[in-house]
Amino acid sequence: MNEAVHYHDYLQLDKILNAQQLESRSLNEAAHDEMLFIIIHQTYELWFKQLHHEVDSVLQIMRKPSLNDNSPELQTVVHRLNRMAVILRVLVHQIDILETMTPMDFLDFRDLLRPASGFQSWQFKLLEAKLGLKFEHRHAQEYYTSQLRHEHVDLIKKAEGEQSFLQLMNGWLERMPFFDSTQGWTTFSNAYTENEHPFWTEYKARYKHSLAEAEKHNAALFEEVFFQQRPSHYTFSAKANRAALFIMLYRGYPMLHQPFQLLNAVLEIDEQLSAWRHRHLNMVHRMIGTRIGTGGSTGKDYLQAAADKHYIFKEIAQLTSFLIERRKLPQLPKAIEVQLGFARNES
Amino acid sequence: MNEAVHYHDYLQLDKILNAQQLESRSLNEAAHDEMLFIIIHQTYELWFKQLHHEVDSVLQIMRKPSLNDNSPELQTVVHRLNRMAVILRVLVHQIDILETMTPMDFLDFRDLLRPASGFQSWQFKLLEAKLGLKFEHRHAQEYYTSQLRHEHVDLIKKAEGEQSFLQLMNGWLERMPFFDSTQGWTTFSNAYTENEHPFWTEYKARYKHSLAEAEKHNAALFEEVFFQQRPSHYTFSAKANRAALFIMLYRGYPMLHQPFQLLNAVLEIDEQLSAWRHRHLNMVHRMIGTRIGTGGSTGKDYLQAAADKHYIFKEIAQLTSFLIERRKLPQLPKAIEVQLGFARNES
Amino acid sequence: MNEAVHYHDYLQLDKILNAQQLESRSLNEAAHDEMLFIIIHQTYELWFKQLHHEVDSVLQIMRKPSLNDNSPELQTVVHRLNRMAVILRVLVHQIDILETMTPMDFLDFRDLLRPASGFQSWQFKLLEAKLGLKFEHRHAQEYYTSQLRHEHVDLIKKAEGEQSFLQLMNGWLERMPFFDSTQGWTTFSNAYTENEHPFWTEYKARYKHSLAEAEKHNAALFEEVFFQQRPSHYTFSAKANRAALFIMLYRGYPMLHQPFQLLNAVLEIDEQLSAWRHRHLNMVHRMIGTRIGTGGSTGKDYLQAAADKHYIFKEIAQLTSFLIERRKLPQLPKAIEVQLGFARNES
Amino acid sequence: MNEAVHYHDYLQLDKILNAQQLESRSLNEAAHDEMLFIIIHQTYELWFKQLHHEVDSVLQIMRKPSLNDNSPELQTVVHRLNRMAVILRVLVHQIDILETMTPMDFLDFRDLLRPASGFQSWQFKLLEAKLGLKFEHRHAQEYYTSQLRHEHVDLIKKAEGEQSFLQLMNGWLERMPFFDSTQGWTTFSNAYTENEHPFWTEYKARYKHSLAEAEKHNAALFEEVFFQQRPSHYTFSAKANRAALFIMLYRGYPMLHQPFQLLNAVLEIDEQLSAWRHRHLNMVHRMIGTRIGTGGSTGKDYLQAAADKHYIFKEIAQLTSFLIERRKLPQLPKAIEVQLGFARNES
Repeated sequence: MNEAVHYHDYLQLDKILNAQQLESRSLNEAAHDEMLFIIIHQTYELWFKQLHHEVDSVLQIMRKPSLNDNSPELQTVVHRLNRMAVILRVLVHQIDILETMTPMDFLDFRDLLRPASGFQSWQFKLLEAKLGLKFEHRHAQEYYTSQLRHEHVDLIKKAEGEQSFLQLMNGWLERMPFFDSTQGWTTFSNAYTENEHPFWTEYKARYKHSLAEAEKHNAALFEEVFFQQRPSHYTFSAKANRAALFIMLYRGYPMLHQPFQLLNAVLEIDEQLSAWRHRHLNMVHRMIGTRIGTGGSTGKDYLQAAADKHYIFKEIAQLTSFLIERRKLPQLPKAIEVQLGFARNES
Repeated sequence: MNEAVHYHDYLQLDKILNAQQLESRSLNEAAHDEMLFIIIHQTYELWFKQLHHEVDSVLQIMRKPSLNDNSPELQTVVHRLNRMAVILRVLVHQIDILETMTPMDFLDFRDLLRPASGFQSWQFKLLEAKLGLKFEHRHAQEYYTSQLRHEHVDLIKKAEGEQSFLQLMNGWLERMPFFDSTQGWTTFSNAYTENEHPFWTEYKARYKHSLAEAEKHNAALFEEVFFQQRPSHYTFSAKANRAALFIMLYRGYPMLHQPFQLLNAVLEIDEQLSAWRHRHLNMVHRMIGTRIGTGGSTGKDYLQAAADKHYIFKEIAQLTSFLIERRKLPQLPKAIEVQLGFARNES
Repeated sequence: MNEAVHYHDYLQLDKILNAQQLESRSLNEAAHDEMLFIIIHQTYELWFKQLHHEVDSVLQIMRKPSLNDNSPELQTVVHRLNRMAVILRVLVHQIDILETMTPMDFLDFRDLLRPASGFQSWQFKLLEAKLGLKFEHRHAQEYYTSQLRHEHVDLIKKAEGEQSFLQLMNGWLERMPFFDSTQGWTTFSNAYTENEHPFWTEYKARYKHSLAEAEKHNAALFEEVFFQQRPSHYTFSAKANRAALFIMLYRGYPMLHQPFQLLNAVLEIDEQLSAWRHRHLNMVHRMIGTRIGTGGSTGKDYLQAAADKHYIFKEIAQLTSFLIERRKLPQLPKAIEVQLGFARNES
Repeated sequence: MNEAVHYHDYLQLDKILNAQQLESRSLNEAAHDEMLFIIIHQTYELWFKQLHHEVDSVLQIMRKPSLNDNSPELQTVVHRLNRMAVILRVLVHQIDILETMTPMDFLDFRDLLRPASGFQSWQFKLLEAKLGLKFEHRHAQEYYTSQLRHEHVDLIKKAEGEQSFLQLMNGWLERMPFFDSTQGWTTFSNAYTENEHPFWTEYKARYKHSLAEAEKHNAALFEEVFFQQRPSHYTFSAKANRAALFIMLYRGYPMLHQPFQLLNAVLEIDEQLSAWRHRHLNMVHRMIGTRIGTGGSTGKDYLQAAADKHYIFKEIAQLTSFLIERRKLPQLPKAIEVQLGFARNES
């Protein structure tokens, strides 16, 4: 049994509350707002640590050869992804606090920080890497590594070399079993081919039929996304895309509840990351205008480009282009419905 | 004296609560989420009406030949601009509600709405026009008018023809009196010329001195923004820009408190408008992917372009590029300080 | 097929945007902030209508003799309850806007509104009734009816007479099948009695063992909540309470995912309702101090009492008192685990 | 000049990111959510440090014998109080993150923390003390000290012994000069007495006249608040109350802009503190029900009582009871108006 625990010690507040040393103390009068600048960045880094704690646990579960549907594993994954989105929301909101610092107040200590810069948050970059952002998709690749220490670049490179969450998602989607054979798909008469399970032949026909005149080009896109070898800059295979679309279409069946929530959770994370970049961008613009950031970049341009390129889950987001109305959906055969349901109802 | 007022009548709830007619009622089963779609847009339009109520009152005050500094007028302007920002914040947050509608749920009634479209909110476009967005700066100009009724296009054209808030701000800034002569500016020895009051000659020198090597090009920009005839696509004159910069630099003096708050308020409005466009954009992307919006546009591209172009107060935002550190600011002469202060302290 | 739909008509904006008539127009100069007062209340009422749309659909599903676990019905219920919580969050945030009205600004038209009052929102009271707030639990019962029209009181009384969401939840929980017999509960040796299924005898023992000295009185409470006839002012039966606790304890099993989310959703709704009442209370206090509200009540006291009494789902909230650590939980027998899982894994 | 600064060192991230040691590491498997529990509390404490940084700077300014109206001092006070409110808003929002921890997840490590407890945040209590909460107004006084270390109790006692922000506000209000004599108050004919300046005699008459029948008791209250020796449990003197009311009534005059914003800022701080306590209360209730908190208290009851008693600025909030309509306000004499305005307009 542990000794009596005291709040102050448990939280190591002696360390935490004595880790703020103002560079501007060297001036006649320390810049009041430098404390804010330090503390807000420290809270950001603490939350980044928490985000890593969550994503690491999620990666660990996803790395298992196969998730057990009857265990709470997938539920845990969804729960923690949702928590990440809640944290990111607070981080976005937290920019409100930094915006109470006026440009003049920032100037009071800005020059003293060179070349320190928010671009040096290796934790944030590592988070992007673990989720699935690849080095080759980053904006201004050299610039980004030049700002970090070797040991932190190494951490990020290592993460880029491992299976990212996005890749693990691809594997998990590919393992979805319902299309491994045509067994049970009795109501779909088409022959089964390697790439074209009868369900998908049917669905493709209905999708094409649903397109407005000006959308006809989407038919070719459908073919490309769901039936062709995907170019290497895509993470998801055609098979994984089909599984994801199936989940969106038939989310009402018990076995697809959690998978659907997982898809939603990653889109929510991407949206919050995007909101974070967008607000950060606006704030930097308001704070330094066209001047050069402490890290040497022309702040706003870098951030704008990064904001546009760094969507991690865009391959999921794009699948909404391929939905059709619920009332036009193919009805699943009874045998498949049983597989998608709970045990005790089978009798 | 009025008769006893009843909440239900006062709010005209019989009208308000009976103004939702679902297009999908024609289907076998009305689409559940169409009600949400209608109600959220109605609340947006109600808030747009309120935003017009505020901006109209602000325009009315700003149109007076000269604001009386000793009246509450400027305070009222700032208060109402701040309120507009608070309203816009809620409108941004409100998108959370629409995001509870999944793409499949939207598909249930989406086709029935063609060609109705969110682009047809004339109130929002009118608001942009009143604030200062000019027709020639709008993205996709023809498209934008093709979606509106004649009477609403006329309203917007009329607003575009009148003095916008941005133009009235320019006039108000130009009227700032402190640089009309060199009287009182005893400590600044330079000769006074039409465009170069000795204060500004001094400030320019200090600004140039403050620039880092990589920022040297900002010196020419300074010249352009504060001393040259501004090209016609700018709203603010060099004189107005100088006044705005002066307010930012010396906001500590009582007479500049409210003007500084006004500058902050419009930047906050722009940021919220930007956040609104950004979230709207993300939501449309999540909802319809690459398909065509009900209004016929390829939703996301239009919105992205608009979001990038429609910053209304960017000329104010850019002025932060020209600040210098507070400890390097020229000290104002006593006579000017008196003019910037309260009456009773003069004795 | 419908005719071409236009945004302005579809949203009936001619009605919506012409439903604001200021009482203060009778004064020399209309009170500027009365428009805000009207519009914010109209948006509240529009959202209340949407909340009714959601709760009505939820009640309709819950009223079915038995929810089909393999249909999307429960998922739909959870989704719509979650949406209600998202809406309530925005309504809470929206009070920020009303707080931009200062007490002096409110005084400009306050007297003209008597006796209209926010207490006259029958939609809000009806919502509380549908969820499960009983008349006899309301604070200041007579006052509350005296403020409403007969037809609206009738609507509320009617809802109070029907099965509320809370009562339907009770029925749904009571129907949870796993404890109907001891079949399958092979590892629990105790004899089965009417009220004490061997699982519960076991759990009770473990719970009692987990209590700290100062918590021993909770043992009696446990007995009362889960095994005795509940007094009539409780909605949930002992049987329903057991089912709810079981869901909380074993939420990891697929069949309990959605039920657990349902429990969370109603707690979230209660929390948002509570936040709404709390902020409303603070705002009224800030606005009118100890003076009398337009409806004749001493605003703050009424609201404080209502805020303390009107928790609707408190019987659910209290169940957290009866949890034990996950590592001390009884292991469920294999036969029961199978019943709680998906079909295809049984083989 | 400082050496090149690196983000990682500047923020002392080696300290910050290595200050999380889980008590549950002693179990077979560390409780996943303990990390969240530690990190969220650390971010709270970092923000509390920032709040102290702000309040200390504000106290330092307020302690000067007299604020110079023509310096930026009061503006700085208002700005920093507003920042405190923005920070508190984020802290309230941040509870969302803690709420993603379910009661079962908390149970996994709750027992290991005894007797550590959130009540042991001496920084929060010290903040309350600096703002103005007196020991004798605290709920459960002995309990509160028993939970803290001697050195931290001493810090709080010391702060309680010094002039709090509330007391400094009282002094600042009392120094408001306009009622020191009747000079200039030419249009008010009443004789001047120690306690009853002619303006106040006039205002009192108008206030009494404005009261509805059921509010007549407010007349006596008015007398008590503005003209009598205040009992010792009040911080504000009658003179200070009069000054605060005058600011609210005539906030339109330039010299009262900032004072009015100061009054609003402290009410906003109180509201956010109240929201924080309220949400904290709800969360504890949802988390542990009626069981005993890790600190040994029956969590919810303690928090409820504290939430009800710990309003710091309630004496300001109550003044809204004594406002009258703007159109019924006494017109100030010209000489007083001049004193309330800017210098250059006097000529």
